[in-house]
Amino acid sequence: MSGERFRVLYHIQGDEAAALEKAKTICLEQTVELDAGLVPAGPIRDWIVGRIEQFAPVEVGVFAAWISYAVETSALELTQLLNVIFGNTSIKPGIRVANLDLGEHLLNHFPGPRFGIPGLRKLLGVPAGPLLCTALKPMGKSPAELADLAYRFALGGIDIIKDDHGLTDQPFCPYRERVQACAEAVARANAQTGKTSLYVPNITAPVLAIAERVRFAQAAGAGGLLISPGLTGFDALRALAADETVNLPLISHPALLGSLVVSPDSGIAHAVIFGQLQRLAGADASIYPNYGGRFAFSREECARIAEGCRMSMGHYPPIFPAPGGGMTLDRLPDLLILYGEDVLFLMGGGLYGRSPDLADNARYFLSLVGRSRRPPIASGRAS
Amino acid sequence: MSGERFRVLYHIQGDEAAALEKAKTICLEQTVELDAGLVPAGPIRDWIVGRIEQFAPVEVGVFAAWISYAVETSALELTQLLNVIFGNTSIKPGIRVANLDLGEHLLNHFPGPRFGIPGLRKLLGVPAGPLLCTALKPMGKSPAELADLAYRFALGGIDIIKDDHGLTDQPFCPYRERVQACAEAVARANAQTGKTSLYVPNITAPVLAIAERVRFAQAAGAGGLLISPGLTGFDALRALAADETVNLPLISHPALLGSLVVSPDSGIAHAVIFGQLQRLAGADASIYPNYGGRFAFSREECARIAEGCRMSMGHYPPIFPAPGGGMTLDRLPDLLILYGEDVLFLMGGGLYGRSPDLADNARYFLSLVGRSRRPPIASGRAS
Repeated sequence: MSGERFRVLYHIQGDEAAALEKAKTICLEQTVELDAGLVPAGPIRDWIVGRIEQFAPVEVGVFAAWISYAVETSALELTQLLNVIFGNTSIKPGIRVANLDLGEHLLNHFPGPRFGIPGLRKLLGVPAGPLLCTALKPMGKSPAELADLAYRFALGGIDIIKDDHGLTDQPFCPYRERVQACAEAVARANAQTGKTSLYVPNITAPVLAIAERVRFAQAAGAGGLLISPGLTGFDALRALAADETVNLPLISHPALLGSLVVSPDSGIAHAVIFGQLQRLAGADASIYPNYGGRFAFSREECARIAEGCRMSMGHYPPIFPAPGGGMTLDRLPDLLILYGEDVLFLMGGGLYGRSPDLADNARYFLSLVGRSRRPPIASGRAS
Repeated sequence: MSGERFRVLYHIQGDEAAALEKAKTICLEQTVELDAGLVPAGPIRDWIVGRIEQFAPVEVGVFAAWISYAVETSALELTQLLNVIFGNTSIKPGIRVANLDLGEHLLNHFPGPRFGIPGLRKLLGVPAGPLLCTALKPMGKSPAELADLAYRFALGGIDIIKDDHGLTDQPFCPYRERVQACAEAVARANAQTGKTSLYVPNITAPVLAIAERVRFAQAAGAGGLLISPGLTGFDALRALAADETVNLPLISHPALLGSLVVSPDSGIAHAVIFGQLQRLAGADASIYPNYGGRFAFSREECARIAEGCRMSMGHYPPIFPAPGGGMTLDRLPDLLILYGEDVLFLMGGGLYGRSPDLADNARYFLSLVGRSRRPPIASGRAS
């Protein structure tokens, strides 16, 4: 018994008495799963059961409870840590995980992001300014067609060129063929431009197939890995971040995680899911839907996510918030005000739709975020 | 291109025009992730993009859209299948997955439950009547203490004695010690009673540790495996069900899955998460919070879960709905009316709280569900 505890902030709906009662129930539900009267006296009651550390009103009908748990209840396993944080209580409406304070012991145990913002900037050779990312799409194109897109985006200077997250190992676009072709295409463009664009294949896959896809991606020259922890479980991401043989940046995609944040009174807060937990699991950039695009996140929610990605968190580096969509010319000034320069803008349709010249489209958007480059000598055209 | 498609039923909030527009957007979002105007003509538009097969009102302000997708978009991977069903659309409020019609091709590809209701009944030697399950708790007890509980529950005839789902590999209760001790205790009780109780350890763990825990459980004589797919990802469950060397029933726990169902207008319907997807991933019993207990599921939602567990679904056997909690004397008649006999009642606190004689408590509850047994000769006491 180390005496060390980590803390979870729950926002609880109800009047003060009801919310306090719910907070007490959380202390039991997340640990011993017994009524208070059945909990043995001694260390189980005093140490294992969650402890309300602070309880205060947030707004009318909502109370904030910081509850602490013994670090040992997590078994230092990410799966079990998530379980202690919210396993059974996720089933109760009107309780939302609003913040995590994991403490030194847990943060030291989990290695966190390998690259983060400074590491990814160094890898890309882009010390300042927003980064740009795009996705190879649509599903249904062949590896050769996607590789051609990748080549043109890399020529145009897009920093990170990732698979669309729905591309895995479909018969019409097998993983190995795609990864080989796209990695080669980006390497060819990099040789022409003298710059570094990273090709990031999607390694979201059945649990027993992930390792093999990672190895193949590494051998093919991939510059990073894309994974959707909502589909694989967060621990699959953590395992990649903890594996010293996987020395590539990890980009996290939000697929299926939407249900966790969609109800404002229940589930897990945006900043926790798309910020803190991503860093705990080792993502170097966290993709989420930008405000004003085709999803429903608010500007405020996006600001909180960016905060979760970049706030102080033990020895972890800050990671890139990677808002996707909604990047139109008229909204760019506000985006730059909100996010500053430590941001990875994910552009999909906008980059495809501007003109058929994808390299030129890429240069255009780079110039919009203050990342103008001279046209690469070898590309033979002016932007 | 097989031409085979699977179908997903979405319930969509809005007036007819808005809901239809959202349905069209789902067809794009779940596949090509492009605006309709950017989708290339030909097979991508005609085959890859989702297709609205039916669209009809459900109630005022809610419409039902059956949307079909080419089987090939799933890559026959459970992770990607979940992604096509709901990956990005999970991020949009007001859209809920209400039903799945996966079709012969996918159901034949995924082996589904190995035991199901008939297999588990055969293993237990209980051809009729509800089954009883309990959990070893609370967290904080030592392996020897938990093994003593397991012994007494097995003497009393509880069919399935599982780890509390928060027990993993904590320093105060290491996995191997606990599993060894509990498996031995249940085997000893079985030898005395001549009946079969199954000890089911929790193998929910970091992704790279699961296989080793499963092997240890098998070697120790475990009678089944408990896993929380909300923590590990559903594919970890599927991988166990597909592994022919793992010939044990799989019991699924709902930890962290609550956030998927908690909003009535968004997320995924109870019957899909706790019924259809569990069977697709190969669970033989699906634990969920019973109505009237300490969670908030309604009687109707529980009825739907039981239906999802037992309805016709290709060649898959029906599986046990395993409602947890809420099993009090006064509510038992209604529980039996709702669930019938093909149910696995999970009793935690109730079984501990009735009296200090756990074996007697077990026999008492077995008698309540029409499963009276004579007191085992070797136990030396009358019930």
